[in-house]
Formats: sequence, structure tokens, C-alpha cells
Amino acid sequence: MKPQFAIGLDYGTNSVRALIVNCANGREIATAVWNFAHGTKGVILSRDPNLARQHPADYVTGAEKTVRAALAAAKRSVRGFRPEQIIGIGVDTTGSTPLPVDADGRPLAFDKRFAKNPAAMAWLWKDHTGVAEAAEITALAREIRPQYLAKCGGTYSSEWFFSKILHCLRTSPEVFDAAHMWVECADWIPAMLTGTEHPDNLSIGICAAGHKAMFHNSWGGYPDEEFLARLDPKMAELRRRLRPVAATIDKTVGRLTADWAKRTGLPPGLPVAVGAFDAHLGAVGSGIAPGTLAKIIGTSTCDMMVVPQSQELADIPGLCGIVPGSILPGHFGLEAGQSAVGDIFNWFVSYIQPGGKSVTHEALESAAAKLKPGESGLLALDWNNGNRTILVDQRLTGLIMGQTLYTTPPEIYRALIEATAFGALTIINRFEEYGVRVEQIVNCGGIAEKSPLTMQIYADVTGRPMKVSRSAQTCALGAAIAGAVVGGAFPDCGSAQRAMTGLKPRVFKPDPAAHAVYREIYAQYRVLHDAFGTATWNGNLHNVMKSLLAIRNRARA
Amino acid sequence: MKPQFAIGLDYGTNSVRALIVNCANGREIATAVWNFAHGTKGVILSRDPNLARQHPADYVTGAEKTVRAALAAAKRSVRGFRPEQIIGIGVDTTGSTPLPVDADGRPLAFDKRFAKNPAAMAWLWKDHTGVAEAAEITALAREIRPQYLAKCGGTYSSEWFFSKILHCLRTSPEVFDAAHMWVECADWIPAMLTGTEHPDNLSIGICAAGHKAMFHNSWGGYPDEEFLARLDPKMAELRRRLRPVAATIDKTVGRLTADWAKRTGLPPGLPVAVGAFDAHLGAVGSGIAPGTLAKIIGTSTCDMMVVPQSQELADIPGLCGIVPGSILPGHFGLEAGQSAVGDIFNWFVSYIQPGGKSVTHEALESAAAKLKPGESGLLALDWNNGNRTILVDQRLTGLIMGQTLYTTPPEIYRALIEATAFGALTIINRFEEYGVRVEQIVNCGGIAEKSPLTMQIYADVTGRPMKVSRSAQTCALGAAIAGAVVGGAFPDCGSAQRAMTGLKPRVFKPDPAAHAVYREIYAQYRVLHDAFGTATWNGNLHNVMKSLLAIRNRARA
Repeated sequence: MKPQFAIGLDYGTNSVRALIVNCANGREIATAVWNFAHGTKGVILSRDPNLARQHPADYVTGAEKTVRAALAAAKRSVRGFRPEQIIGIGVDTTGSTPLPVDADGRPLAFDKRFAKNPAAMAWLWKDHTGVAEAAEITALAREIRPQYLAKCGGTYSSEWFFSKILHCLRTSPEVFDAAHMWVECADWIPAMLTGTEHPDNLSIGICAAGHKAMFHNSWGGYPDEEFLARLDPKMAELRRRLRPVAATIDKTVGRLTADWAKRTGLPPGLPVAVGAFDAHLGAVGSGIAPGTLAKIIGTSTCDMMVVPQSQELADIPGLCGIVPGSILPGHFGLEAGQSAVGDIFNWFVSYIQPGGKSVTHEALESAAAKLKPGESGLLALDWNNGNRTILVDQRLTGLIMGQTLYTTPPEIYRALIEATAFGALTIINRFEEYGVRVEQIVNCGGIAEKSPLTMQIYADVTGRPMKVSRSAQTCALGAAIAGAVVGGAFPDCGSAQRAMTGLKPRVFKPDPAAHAVYREIYAQYRVLHDAFGTATWNGNLHNVMKSLLAIRNRARA
Repeated sequence: MKPQFAIGLDYGTNSVRALIVNCANGREIATAVWNFAHGTKGVILSRDPNLARQHPADYVTGAEKTVRAALAAAKRSVRGFRPEQIIGIGVDTTGSTPLPVDADGRPLAFDKRFAKNPAAMAWLWKDHTGVAEAAEITALAREIRPQYLAKCGGTYSSEWFFSKILHCLRTSPEVFDAAHMWVECADWIPAMLTGTEHPDNLSIGICAAGHKAMFHNSWGGYPDEEFLARLDPKMAELRRRLRPVAATIDKTVGRLTADWAKRTGLPPGLPVAVGAFDAHLGAVGSGIAPGTLAKIIGTSTCDMMVVPQSQELADIPGLCGIVPGSILPGHFGLEAGQSAVGDIFNWFVSYIQPGGKSVTHEALESAAAKLKPGESGLLALDWNNGNRTILVDQRLTGLIMGQTLYTTPPEIYRALIEATAFGALTIINRFEEYGVRVEQIVNCGGIAEKSPLTMQIYADVTGRPMKVSRSAQTCALGAAIAGAVVGGAFPDCGSAQRAMTGLKPRVFKPDPAAHAVYREIYAQYRVLHDAFGTATWNGNLHNVMKSLLAIRNRARA
């Protein structure tokens, strides 16, 4: 059998990565990263802390540089490797990261008139300038289209497609008026590579449209014109120019143009798969399947599951989204997540700097690992950046309790890890409460790679084994899997996953004694969670501190 | 008029101080400190973290060394000063710090058989070995003598007289059996100086007996024999050997012996006043009078008030004690307090070491002073060492909330100061709820001396001016005032205070705008306080984080 390779392009917040993978076994033979050139580490900022943009010129340069470098690396690492052995390309990006384009599908940012106007650039996922518009959209939907909210956790976010576009209409009307339409970065990159940017030719993915733009076949795609007109008549006009159909990642958007073949060194005519978000293709790269929870743990987490579309599935309150086909074709894609995990640990190390500027995660983790569950008497809430699932509330903040006059930094560090574990358990429970069984948990991302203590605490808190994805770059691997499918190496994503994904040999198994202690502490976490996080809880917290002290005294005895 | 001086002896946890004061104007002409020689910084410790003892040999040596040194210093600082110009001696000590003595009033620790037995030493105020016995005494009193608890905050503490003695009976019966009686350090030092240690001659003070040993004239002094017999028949026997009458600080226990005159260089026959606790004589040295709250702020606080005994006064729940004559003769002495203030700031600096080991209170205070009220969005509870007033509950712990991913150490430091201010306001409110008007607040102690930011925040939080006592050593000054009264320089304590105490010129005035913000934050503090601290509160905390964010957003706008 001739060797076959696929290439995954992974567009992140600060950089882009190209990964070349052997379709037969998932071996990652070459990778290359390019840091975006514009702004601060690739992000255009302003005095408004809510503003975060990317310049689409970086998308073009990034594809060229990383593919070329990855091909060169592949030649070095695999004897006889030739670019012609590559059979397909997949793409993942951040999102919702929409950019305004003109009537030819060309980014407005490439137009001299708008070259320095941030409103004409790509509105990066973490741009929050549309807070007011998000509230307006949520209020309107609650009033006249509650079904729109049922699929996206009950609240439309300022991070999403229509909040950003409406904010542009309100604050930069010259850009809005100059835009023929808006395209998600995840859709624009594949279009760029295949020369299908023109609005008549453009293919869009269901992942971005379904999770961030309230696109659902049951109501005919995007929100209806009447709804959008209530926001602004121009929004209804815009809808007529948006694409009516959205596809899954096993579909081809087109073939690599001769120009792009020349730029990158790839053979012309290569099929390029429909794009999707990084977390969704990360789940694919982690081997997601029914019953498997894929946890992508970095600064925040995405907690992804799939359910066959042949099954009944209720709307699950608090999830970020439930979208048919958004992860795997033929399956509902379920997205949940925690607003901050690694970011909380980074806050403690970088902002509090306990013991000094030279303190490291490694040193704190090593000291924290020596502590027994419950021994510190501490309990924290993992809400320093709000709560995504299950409360869907940005207006929540962190909390640490149980401090004495002798509480140490490693104790706090461990309590912060435990807090994120309790948050993770709350998400697992929410899935199961609505009939989605979690039979296996596969972790990937920076924290899963680097912090064995976090993995062990997650196992002990949840009472479930924690497995870790074999790949350290599951998003790019997932994109390569899409490339392998459209390249014809596999009949479907599931077959490709079985061949190309895997687990690390080390599994973190729950310790029953630790789990028993954490069950007690989690009960107190849930009291705090519900007391501070819900309007319906009613009760008294008199027992929380005393319970933690009792647990502590037993742990120390 | 001939110059007259009084001497105050102030026995602390780690050292003893002698202070010589001019009776005409309160000028402090000489002072000397001696660090106790035994144990760790004067405290005998063991593997049991609850154990803390002092060796009474240090009391003897300390009086000799400090008085000699203070007299020498006075001679250097005041031309023509002669020891004969000293007219009286007052004594304050920590407490409850009881020591077992033999039939001659000699400390058992001076007996070779017990020389190394910690049970035969002085049981320092912060010794908590009697936790179980305290609970037993509280339970018994609640059952058969609730009136005993009404005067001491509803709970008998492990830090107090009978808890310690009962623990000794239970765990070191050989010491208990060898002890003829137990004497508070505050009573034993004056007895030592005047040769009145013999049980038949011993005078005891109402301060220690009333606040720590449930001594009250309305029920005939100490708890009755029936009550004590229920704890142990030997406790009832002990009661028969305890003194039946307790005196105020304007009374003389005796006159300086020839031996002590020789040891110290003082004239023989000097009158020595009845001893009292440091916080109580500190209040006297701060100029306490009806309407004046004297706050002694150090690692913890004592919040002292007096009410003329001619007035009706209800039992005030949550106060540590209400004792006629314990501070000023003819007045109810009211003691409240916070379990930790400076200790919380010290925890943050010494245990968390934000930014490095070399971080200082001064640096954090300077950065925290630049913040506006509410700007951090943080709120803390000042319970790292439990809550003394008004909850009287050791089984409470610290809490910090409102953290984001950008929260800084100075923000936390300020939140900790604010938390102690909220705790202070809760005490003020409790006094006033029971008809004790707080017309003036005088602060003294280390924090009042060293932290202008703390004083300003206290003013802003309470909406009341914060005054600071002129003396930096109000406890020793209060003792000297007692010495001046028994020496005949004044007819009563009030006259002595008017002549010998004063305020610093700088008054910290509340800023109305800051006070308005703090009123809002205090409302949230009270929600946390009642939710975590009381069994009766019932409600929901959904609004707490959101309120803090709203306050923060206004402060930052």
C-alpha cells in the first residue's frame, strides 16, 4: 500500500500550525508553527479591553509559511516523502471569528480604505465589544423565538456571529455597509485555499453556523428575516446574502488552486475539507465517539460529546450548543465548557506570584501533590472568568474559603485545581442528567499534557479514569483526519479516527479513598455553586465552613 | 508641686515592659523591655499545637530587670529624677493565664518535682488544650446555669480559667492534686511584689475573675459548688480555697517588700495596685470613658467600652464579657474583639509572600492606598482565626471572593483590611443595638500606630472619625495610671486619665463618597456574615457577586 498523508491547518489565537499525519497510523511526521505578525502576539487590541481582532493577511501568510515548512520537515523526517503523497487538507480555526468580505468574497481589510480599521478585520472569538447587542439578541429571542436559545444554552453570547455584526452595524456603519456578507474564519480559510471565496461559490460549515449563528435546519437555517429585522432591517437584508446550507467536515469545499499549490509546494487539485472550530476538530482528534467525553483543557476547557442523530436528545440546559453534525457527521455535537482552567492557575502564578516572581507551576504542583484530599480545609469556586457550563453566566467571580492564619500557596494551588475538577464533574453530571452517558473521558490540551496532578485530581474527584489523547496537537490532528476523509483514505470520519487517533498508555485511575473525601467536599462545592450561581436556591451556609473543618481534621488525624 | 511618677509593669506574651510616667501630664520618661528567657520567645511549646505555657521564673526576673533598667533610663532622661519620686505601681498581664500554687502561694513550677512539667507552669492565654473541657463547661452551664454564659458571650472558652484547670485535673492529676489553688498571672505579680502570695492574704482583681472565671457578685462570686461538682467533685473543693472577693484597679493589694525594693531600686513600701488584663488597662491608658470605644488593634483586637453601673444594661449577645468594675471602678466593663486583624495581614505577607519573600506590609499598603473603594470587586471575611464578636465561633474560616483573572496582591491586601473594618463595624453596631452609644473611637496598638491606610479605611467604612491614642504603650500607661491612683496622686481613675492620657493630633476623618460605597459593600459583607455565620439566616446569594461587579464597574468608570 502506498503511503498516504493528510495535512491539518490549525489557526489559533496567536499562531497557525500545519501538521502532516500518516493516514495509516496517525503518526505525526512533521509540524510547523508561524506566529501571526499583526498586533500583540497576533491580536489587534485597542484602549477598549473588549476589543480583539486579527488581520486576515496573517491567515494568508500563515498558510503559506507553515505548509512550506512542514513539507520541508517531512522530507527530513521520512525517507522518500513526497508532497504528492498528501491526499487532502483539513482546517480548524478559532471561532466565532467572523470577517466582513466584499461582493467577491475578499476581506474588507484588504481594501486600502479599510486597511487600518479594526472593524474591517476578523472579529476574534474573544472580542466582547458586542455585549449590549448580545443582550438585545437574547432578549428578543426570549420574547419571540425561544427555540433559538434552547440550542445554545439559553443566552446568546457577545462572542458570537450576530452580536459582532450588529455591533459593527451600530458603531462602524461604513464597514457594515461596505460588507457584502460576513464569513467565519473557519469557512474563509478553506475558501481561500480553493478559490471559492465568491459568495456564490462559498461553502460554509455547520460547526460555526450551528453553534454561533443559531443556524438550524428545523427553522430553515439562520434566524428568520422577521427576527433579524427586529434587530435592524439591514440585518434581514444581510440574511438574504448568507448561504442557506451548511455542511459537515467530511465534505469537500473545493480543490487547492494552482496558485496555492505554487505558494505552498503542495500538489494542485488537493481536496480541502469543510472547516470547523478547533475544539470540535480537537474532539475528533481525541477519538470522540458516542459515550466518550473529549475534554480539551487549556486556558479554558471545551467538553465535547456526540450522540447519534438516530437517538432522541432533549435540549440540555446550560450547554453552549447542540448542533447536528457539528463534530461528527450523523451525530449531534454537544459543546460544554469551563470559562477558565489553566487561566486560573496562571493567575495565581503570574499575578499573585506566591513566594516570588520565579515561582513555577511545577514547584507549586510538586508541593500540592504531597497534600491529602481535604487536608487544607480549603474550597474554591472556579469562576474567576465566569461560568460557561452549566450556569452560562459571565457575571460570576472567583471565591476561596477555608483560609486560616497558616494557609500556604501549595494548599491554595491545589484548591484551585480541585475547583476546576468540581466544575468538570458538574458538567459530567449535567450530561448524564439528560441521558447522555459518559462512559470514557479522554483529555487533551496543554494541562492534560503537562499536569499529572490535575489529571489525578480529576480522576479522584469524578471517580472515573482519566485517559489522555496520544496526540499533543489534537486540533490539527482532527483537521488532518477531515483531510484524510475528503482525500478518500477512509469512507467516513469514524474509520479515520480508529486508524489515526489513540491514547497514551498512562491512565489516571481514581483512588477510592480520595474519591470518598472529594464526594463530601463536592457536596459543599455544590452548595456554594447553587447559592451564588442560581436565583432559585434557598437555604443556609452555616454548615459549609464547619464541614470543611471536620473533613480537614479527619484528613490530618 | 513636687514631681510625681508612677510605674506600670506590662507582662506580655513574649516580654515584660516597665514604663515610668509623669503623673502631672502623662509624659513617659523611661521604659525598659526584657524578653522572657524560657521556651520559644518566652512561650513553652510542645508537639501539641494547642499547648502554650510560660515559666513563672520569667515573671520574677522580668520585674527585677525592667524596673532597674527603667529607673536607670529615667535618671538619664530627667534631670534630678530620683526613685523616691515614684509613688505607686500598677500591673497588667495577659490572661486568662492561671498558674497552680502551693499552700504558701508559691508556684508549683518552683518546686523541683515539677520544674520541667508544663502543667505546673502558667497556662498562657492562648493555650487551647482545654477545648473539650470548655465544651463540657459550656454545655453544663447551658443546662443548669445559663446566667453564667449570659455575661461571657454565650460560650465558655478553652482559653479561660476553669477550662485549663479542669484539663489539668483530667490530664495531669498529680499537678492538680499538688496545687492548693490557681492564681491568675494578673493577681500573682502584684502579690509577688507585695509578699501577699499566701492564700490567706491574696487579693484578686475583678477583671480576670469576672471575664474569665464567671465571677459575679450577683451569684456570690465564682460558680457555685454544685455547678463545679458536676464537672468534678475536686473542682468544688478547689472553689472553697479560692478568694471570695475581687477588687478594682484603684485598690491596693499591698506594699512593695523590702526585698523587692532592694532587687529593683524602688523605695520600699510603695503601694501596688490590683492587677488587670493588658487590654483593660490599655483601654484605661487610651482614655476610655462612657461613650468612648477603645480599640486595641494588634494581631487581634480588643474593643472595650464602659457604662456607668448606675445605668441599666442588658446582656449583649456576642460580647466576650460584661463585668462591673473590670475596666474602670463604678462602670460595667464591656469587652468585645476580633480574633485576628494584624494576624490576617501577616498571614498574607508571611505565608503567601505575594511577589516574593521580601514583600513588606509597607509596599502592599502603599499600592493598596492607590485603589478606590470597590474598585477591586473583592470582598473578604475576616475569619481566618474564627470570629470572636459577634458570632463567638472558632469554627469559622477566611473567605475571599470577587477574584478575576487579573486580581492583584494589593487588591487582596486592601480587601483584607476592609474585611477587618467590616468586622469592626459589626461590633460597633452590636454595642449600639443594645443601647451603648459609641460617641468616640480611640485606637491604639501596633496597627493603629503603623498603618494610616487601615485607620482611613476604618473611618470610611464606619463613617466615624478614627482617633489614635497619644501613647504607643497604652497598656503599660494604664498600669501606671492605676499606680498613680493607689499612690494618691488622684482621687480616682477618671481624674488620673484626664491628666495622663491624650490623643495624637491626626484624626482620620471619613470621606463621605468612600463611606457611601462602603455602605453598599458592607451590605454584601453582612449577607456573607449571616449566611456562613448563623444557623438562622435563610436566603440566596445570587446577587452578591453581581452587586460587587456593579460597584466595581461604577468605581472604575
